Amino acid sequence: MKRIAILGSTGSIGRSTLSVAESYPDRFQIVALAAGSNVDAAFEQARRWRPRVLSMAAEKDADRLRSRLKIEGLAATEVVHGSAGTVQVATHPEVDFVVSAIVGVAGLEATYEAVKAGKALGLANKECLVAAGELITTEARKQGKPLLPIDSEHNAVHQCLRGGRVEEVDRIWLTASGGPFLNTPASKFAEITVEEALNHPTWKMGRRITIDSATLMNKGFEVIEACRLFHIPPAKVEVIVHPQSTIHSMVEFVDGSILAQFSVTDMRLPILYALTYPERIPSDMRFAVSDLRHLDFCPPDLKKFPCLSLAYEAVEAGGAKTVALNAADEVAVAAFLEGTIGFNDIPRIIETVLDATESGKLESIAEVLAADAEARRSAHERVAGSGRSARKVGRPKATSFA
Amino acid sequence: MKRIAILGSTGSIGRSTLSVAESYPDRFQIVALAAGSNVDAAFEQARRWRPRVLSMAAEKDADRLRSRLKIEGLAATEVVHGSAGTVQVATHPEVDFVVSAIVGVAGLEATYEAVKAGKALGLANKECLVAAGELITTEARKQGKPLLPIDSEHNAVHQCLRGGRVEEVDRIWLTASGGPFLNTPASKFAEITVEEALNHPTWKMGRRITIDSATLMNKGFEVIEACRLFHIPPAKVEVIVHPQSTIHSMVEFVDGSILAQFSVTDMRLPILYALTYPERIPSDMRFAVSDLRHLDFCPPDLKKFPCLSLAYEAVEAGGAKTVALNAADEVAVAAFLEGTIGFNDIPRIIETVLDATESGKLESIAEVLAADAEARRSAHERVAGSGRSARKVGRPKATSFA
Repeated sequence: MKRIAILGSTGSIGRSTLSVAESYPDRFQIVALAAGSNVDAAFEQARRWRPRVLSMAAEKDADRLRSRLKIEGLAATEVVHGSAGTVQVATHPEVDFVVSAIVGVAGLEATYEAVKAGKALGLANKECLVAAGELITTEARKQGKPLLPIDSEHNAVHQCLRGGRVEEVDRIWLTASGGPFLNTPASKFAEITVEEALNHPTWKMGRRITIDSATLMNKGFEVIEACRLFHIPPAKVEVIVHPQSTIHSMVEFVDGSILAQFSVTDMRLPILYALTYPERIPSDMRFAVSDLRHLDFCPPDLKKFPCLSLAYEAVEAGGAKTVALNAADEVAVAAFLEGTIGFNDIPRIIETVLDATESGKLESIAEVLAADAEARRSAHERVAGSGRSARKVGRPKATSFA
Repeated sequence: MKRIAILGSTGSIGRSTLSVAESYPDRFQIVALAAGSNVDAAFEQARRWRPRVLSMAAEKDADRLRSRLKIEGLAATEVVHGSAGTVQVATHPEVDFVVSAIVGVAGLEATYEAVKAGKALGLANKECLVAAGELITTEARKQGKPLLPIDSEHNAVHQCLRGGRVEEVDRIWLTASGGPFLNTPASKFAEITVEEALNHPTWKMGRRITIDSATLMNKGFEVIEACRLFHIPPAKVEVIVHPQSTIHSMVEFVDGSILAQFSVTDMRLPILYALTYPERIPSDMRFAVSDLRHLDFCPPDLKKFPCLSLAYEAVEAGGAKTVALNAADEVAVAAFLEGTIGFNDIPRIIETVLDATESGKLESIAEVLAADAEARRSAHERVAGSGRSARKVGRPKATSFA
């Protein structure tokens, strides 16, 4: 029986994890949950799973949940809140395995504490590797505990890597769907609307990650994650466009053999893999191999998608640069979604923030969070100075990138 | 330093093995060679590699080689001959690893003796698994020594299997190029010429294996080999047509993950893999992943290619049936190549031989060879009774399959 904590239990990955646990009641026990602000969802999860502890983001939500649970006679679940509450969930002594799936930097501290407490980790939170990857992977190595990626690409790489040792890897090939603008000419990029950008061809995802897929920044983040997760230099991580997203990623070994992984596009599969590794257990998530017909590939167009190059630059420099890349992207994407800036402004803003960021190793989560805050401030400033609203009042666009 | 014996050193796999050894002089030492009847080639190999022992098939060729080596001052290589000579090569006390690449049943005894002597084995000889697979794999398990497949499909499966345990395998998917008649309508099969059948789209190979690829019997043999090599029932081995032959094979695990292996189509790659397993060492056999564009797949047409179904039938029954399948195919293909029978007669002859063969486990190589001789006799009889030559003298075709 594996005893599980989920950071981000009411989000998409959290709910998928619970769905996996539901399918294998003899294998998994849900011990601790950290939810966000959805009290109704948290209440249902508490009723179904009876965790030892459940944390809400805000104190008032924790209070509401506690009252409702008391009324239902479910007071055995301790309700806590805030970042201290999340850490309590992540480090609960009865927990073996922590699923880290809080979106954004909010999950960093608790994830780091989980690793320090010797928990095995399933990682779905991008920031854990993009912003704090050096800290977290170093600590996991020290603890001798596995870091198992819960996203289709890195999970695929993890599976392919079983075919050899990390020192025998020549290249990691991350596949990219290419997003909705794979075949859109560069000349039309400036006019891309929010609606067009939210229309991802393969995956149904949250709004930020969908835009990140449209700019290929998401693939850039994945390059950084791969470097940190597998201790591979950026020069050994490549991206190849594969519009069907059937093959989730590939590993090329030094002898010339390449292993590729594919499966249905269902997040429960990498979750199941992470929860049961090194075992594999039967699932109903079957890919109909006999229906396989065509797989297409092409190289990515770095001119159309400068975000990908920015990610390589950031990870080459390391430390604060990757923190800034993520923070600036989050701010820029939010501004694009609000209609404040255009599609092409996203990489422009990120680039200027990146250029203004000093590289250098970050020694603690506090330093990561400080670098993150600074990059956000800087990005907001540039959004304000370069956006459509600014242009509307007549400021020339060029000056904001001087 | 791995010390190697090659059974079939002057054949295609033998020469490729020596080419691999040539590229890594610090890793591999050639200790013993078994050649066929090509004295010139054997002489050059003896001069280049200075093996302890070299065996020729015939005594007169051994005598000629011995004289030539003596003249050149290379008498340190002991020259032997015949099946006893081949066994001496296969069981040489200084040998760690035996590459079994003699075509046909001639290599069976020596390969079995190598396994019994505790050698690690690289298997390129189809008959070792199709005809004597149960004996050889059982012995290898007993010895605790690896059996490493030296052919692109099973080598690919071996690599993919590193991603899990054999008990976690749901399906092995062997890819098939589909051969030259993938898109030929069944109605034209009776008129297929030898020249057309020898024109394989992907691989340059010997004449028999090229015809076996055209009938898909080669894929049928590979199904049998996979069952024996990986201890998997026939129901778990599937064939999928993949005309580019880029992906060499795939393994589907019970959790729904599929691993696929691809590489350049160069036999030196599986040889290198087998010789260095579990290590991987750098090679110049690079697949240009960034040039990857399209991969196509479709299910095999069992009506057009009945040989594939015959192979499943034979392996389900086991024992003497797979021996008969191989023997009857060899005789039928030879008859087709001589123009004695038509393309569609190949599966017909095999089927009648198979039907006439009792199933039952074979307990020794001698029993395998006896079953092989009996099946050949039976196949020759049917060729004589059903061939074009027979039809030319007016015998009705139907009677020969009564």
